Amino acid sequence: MNLNPTPDFSAGLQCPIPISDYPNVLLAHGGGGRLTQMLIERMFLPSFANPALEMLHDGAVLEVNGTRLAFSTDSFVVSPLFFPGGDIGSLAVHGTVNDLAMCGARPLSLATGFILEEGLPMEDLWRVVRSMQQAARAVGVPIVTGDTKVVDRGKGDGVFINTTGIGIIPEGIFVSPRRARAGDLVLINGAIAGHGIAIMSVREGLEFETELASDSAPLHDLVARVLDVAGEQVHVLRDPTRGGLASSLNEIAAQAGVGIRLEEARIPIGDEVRGACEILGLDPLYVANEGKCLVIVAREAAEAALSALRAHPLGAEAAIIGEVVSEHPGQVFLRSRIGGLRVVDMLSGEQLPRIC
Amino acid sequence: MNLNPTPDFSAGLQCPIPISDYPNVLLAHGGGGRLTQMLIERMFLPSFANPALEMLHDGAVLEVNGTRLAFSTDSFVVSPLFFPGGDIGSLAVHGTVNDLAMCGARPLSLATGFILEEGLPMEDLWRVVRSMQQAARAVGVPIVTGDTKVVDRGKGDGVFINTTGIGIIPEGIFVSPRRARAGDLVLINGAIAGHGIAIMSVREGLEFETELASDSAPLHDLVARVLDVAGEQVHVLRDPTRGGLASSLNEIAAQAGVGIRLEEARIPIGDEVRGACEILGLDPLYVANEGKCLVIVAREAAEAALSALRAHPLGAEAAIIGEVVSEHPGQVFLRSRIGGLRVVDMLSGEQLPRIC
Repeated sequence: MNLNPTPDFSAGLQCPIPISDYPNVLLAHGGGGRLTQMLIERMFLPSFANPALEMLHDGAVLEVNGTRLAFSTDSFVVSPLFFPGGDIGSLAVHGTVNDLAMCGARPLSLATGFILEEGLPMEDLWRVVRSMQQAARAVGVPIVTGDTKVVDRGKGDGVFINTTGIGIIPEGIFVSPRRARAGDLVLINGAIAGHGIAIMSVREGLEFETELASDSAPLHDLVARVLDVAGEQVHVLRDPTRGGLASSLNEIAAQAGVGIRLEEARIPIGDEVRGACEILGLDPLYVANEGKCLVIVAREAAEAALSALRAHPLGAEAAIIGEVVSEHPGQVFLRSRIGGLRVVDMLSGEQLPRIC
Repeated sequence: MNLNPTPDFSAGLQCPIPISDYPNVLLAHGGGGRLTQMLIERMFLPSFANPALEMLHDGAVLEVNGTRLAFSTDSFVVSPLFFPGGDIGSLAVHGTVNDLAMCGARPLSLATGFILEEGLPMEDLWRVVRSMQQAARAVGVPIVTGDTKVVDRGKGDGVFINTTGIGIIPEGIFVSPRRARAGDLVLINGAIAGHGIAIMSVREGLEFETELASDSAPLHDLVARVLDVAGEQVHVLRDPTRGGLASSLNEIAAQAGVGIRLEEARIPIGDEVRGACEILGLDPLYVANEGKCLVIVAREAAEAALSALRAHPLGAEAAIIGEVVSEHPGQVFLRSRIGGLRVVDMLSGEQLPRIC
């Protein structure tokens, strides 16, 4: 065993991202679209290759003495720190709780790492910590360990938070993006694009008649209700955060080798959010959500899953929005309100930087 | 259950850090000394209160279906990213592996979160990823899940990395800072202050006859050997990173309610590191280590533990450096080479910012 490995860069192993095209990291490499995917598929996956990572899940699944654990990490760099409907603290709790839930797991514990910028008002840190505390308490998941670093003024941006979570996957639950199969139906628990629009309207100083609040919310309980009624017929769970509905469904289509057809008229979206998207020139299919869950379920269990979603406070507007098909594997299509069919591609650039 | 909690700041709960003294976050709040301790004890612990967090360990211990898991998180913001003996990538693996080892755990899996600054050279990212890959492979612990965010130029500093780990604590092992008791002996596996001095010599442009390399190394195997021979007689394990030997031992003395007496002449330190400390005006007791382990062990098991340390490649210079005493609970003393006894206090300011 090499106890103190010194990296060897003489081995001729080239950087797997074409340097001529991308000499430097771009904001879009973190945007959840095509460049993020390139970084993951070409650099991270081959470097850290192992069976758990290859699942390309929202988290890894580990088996420990017969118990299946979900393990998921997320760093939060949202700007501004405080926004309608939440702040970086509550978002950091909800985001990781949701990633665990998307593995079919019941969240057990969270760890949190703060990177603070020198000069951050102490009151702002306190607001963030209080918000994390309240969010964690509402979810019923303790923050059991943490770390704090401070970087020089101008080398950070107020607060960055990493939250990593462990959850327990109940027996009989097997969700994975690879389980999507032709004939499955695609459900969502409510109206899309709320989080991204809340952030953008603050950044752009837009005002609306009613405040457009982030949909940031913990989805573990909603997911538990769906799993209660549909069990292993729930094939895929995914929270469409960065890159929105379109990017999440493209990833699933690619991983499962299936096509996905959406019905535009069935996708719930609020009128004001739709209006804000038009003003901002954004396609709501690509705008981030932080309290939405895609459920891909065997057709025969879809009604039961839909009823379970609708019975939950976070699922009142739940809908069946599309289906998994065998044609055009790896692609997502949208049937528009007027009947045309168009390809819904991965996000290529950076639509909304630092949304989470 | 409150599903979408909105923080309520009208409740009159004051910021627990005195704003008149500390209106803003200072670099020293991340330095591992007194201000870090104040932030943890006054803000984080009361906010996130739960039994696991109150252990004030390098990580939390969770019981899952009869298996004890260690869970630990660390964010790495070291500057510069590359330094003699390592880089932020290898450090991020070693740091979390070591925190798990200090809980008595065998590392099982790592999660990693990157925060990249727009404009980071892609080749630098690749060097860091390759180094993490090699470090993780040498340790034999897979990186199973990850996340990547990008922040605007001038809002980060190249790369920040969070690594969070899960480990399994074998039966019969119970290490905790609270288990230090009068009569125990204090061991260390080798010469101190190597990491901090390697970083500072790069920052200050100092040159020495031989390159002063960081001691960054994974300690899980060394710890396993000590636990093999001394088992539950190993009372405390601690890696003296930020704040150095002095801060770690002060924390243990406070948590266990004991005194700790060190013998200066027995503390291993390299001549060049000692010389560099003199040039830089640093007390080596406060300088960070990244490959050192303090072992506090029942007196009757100390010789066996020392032999196990010395038999390991990372413990050739291991030594018994002091003892736990009942006098002056909460304090650390140093008997100097000339026989005087002085108090070794917590670090109060920021000695070495962004050392890890």
